[in-house]
Amino acid sequence: MKIFQQEIGLRERRRGFHLITTEVINALPQVVEIKTGMCQIFIQHTSASLCINENADPTVRQDFEMYFNKAVPEGDPDYLHDDEGPDDMPAHLKAALLGSSVSIPIRNGRLALGTWQGIYLCEHRNYGHRRSIIITAWVNKSIQ
Amino acid sequence: MKIFQQEIGLRERRRGFHLITTEVINALPQVVEIKTGMCQIFIQHTSASLCINENADPTVRQDFEMYFNKAVPEGDPDYLHDDEGPDDMPAHLKAALLGSSVSIPIRNGRLALGTWQGIYLCEHRNYGHRRSIIITAWVNKSIQ
Amino acid sequence: MKIFQQEIGLRERRRGFHLITTEVINALPQVVEIKTGMCQIFIQHTSASLCINENADPTVRQDFEMYFNKAVPEGDPDYLHDDEGPDDMPAHLKAALLGSSVSIPIRNGRLALGTWQGIYLCEHRNYGHRRSIIITAWVNKSIQ
Repeated sequence: MKIFQQEIGLRERRRGFHLITTEVINALPQVVEIKTGMCQIFIQHTSASLCINENADPTVRQDFEMYFNKAVPEGDPDYLHDDEGPDDMPAHLKAALLGSSVSIPIRNGRLALGTWQGIYLCEHRNYGHRRSIIITAWVNKSIQ
Repeated sequence: MKIFQQEIGLRERRRGFHLITTEVINALPQVVEIKTGMCQIFIQHTSASLCINENADPTVRQDFEMYFNKAVPEGDPDYLHDDEGPDDMPAHLKAALLGSSVSIPIRNGRLALGTWQGIYLCEHRNYGHRRSIIITAWVNKSIQ
Repeated sequence: MKIFQQEIGLRERRRGFHLITTEVINALPQVVEIKTGMCQIFIQHTSASLCINENADPTVRQDFEMYFNKAVPEGDPDYLHDDEGPDDMPAHLKAALLGSSVSIPIRNGRLALGTWQGIYLCEHRNYGHRRSIIITAWVNKSIQ
């Protein structure tokens, strides 16, 4: 059994939900020789997050942005932490609701995502940044 | 160290939250010989999800269904994606809030769930489907 | 490759969000010899949870408590499960929204948290308890 690990920088994206499945797969070319294992993707930030959802219709990702803006409103006068503007505290809360990592089985030499599943980068700041993610895979080379 | 992996189909369930702990444990009989490790359960869908919560009182699972229906309402006129009906986009959002996998340590040869913890299948569609999950365990056979 | 595992009890804390990064790191001294791997922290409870967020400004953690109290209100007459008081069912729901585990890559011999990331214990009960967590790390001793 082996562990592979790769840190990559995702280019800056506008606020919203973005498919990054291909970028993740391309970062781990070794996975193609692998039969069975697990892949984890971790984001090193507290105002952006990762999740898995629908990979086809772009309006799903627009609805995610709309929903999370309603569920975690800006401008709540009860926020104490707003140093970096009205999107600051909501970005932290959205990141906690969605999570800082996703883990996906590797099966038959590929990420075992369902037909409609893709990996989302969730950018919660108005002015995103380059975002650093770490991809780690632990694997057998034979089927067990 | 070894990786075990098993894909299983969960029979169709009605919309709501359902305990599947026993089905997961039965799918990995090898775990009983194991001392220390980790088990991940991944669902290959974007309108159903997995989480860990209270395993005893069925009203907890009814309250989950009630709460998530209020927190992610159907019929919001701002949804753009509604091809498959009013439960379509809310199902995607609930799945993202709850997550597509759970990971549980293996300790002393069994899943180290707390006394009150069980694994929930969260079915967010009115008409559920057979749902495919992948169970992966990576383990030592000796205590370290 | 090796798996390390440690169960620790976190002392009782008041309801709210608490940084436990140092306690987690201190529980796994072996990690310092490690080059590459993964660390998972799992909480064995259904009314407390774990997440990763901002590690510097304490008002962020106060805003988390404020937000989650609004997002998951106490006293909803639709709750069926309230045996242990008004904070009972909301605690279960908050725990499911935030999750029962976090997973963090190990890179260059340390937890690869971003500059601003810390591990939160999220105590959702009015009268918290000693909380049991299991820390599991699986690692290579050489860089791959």
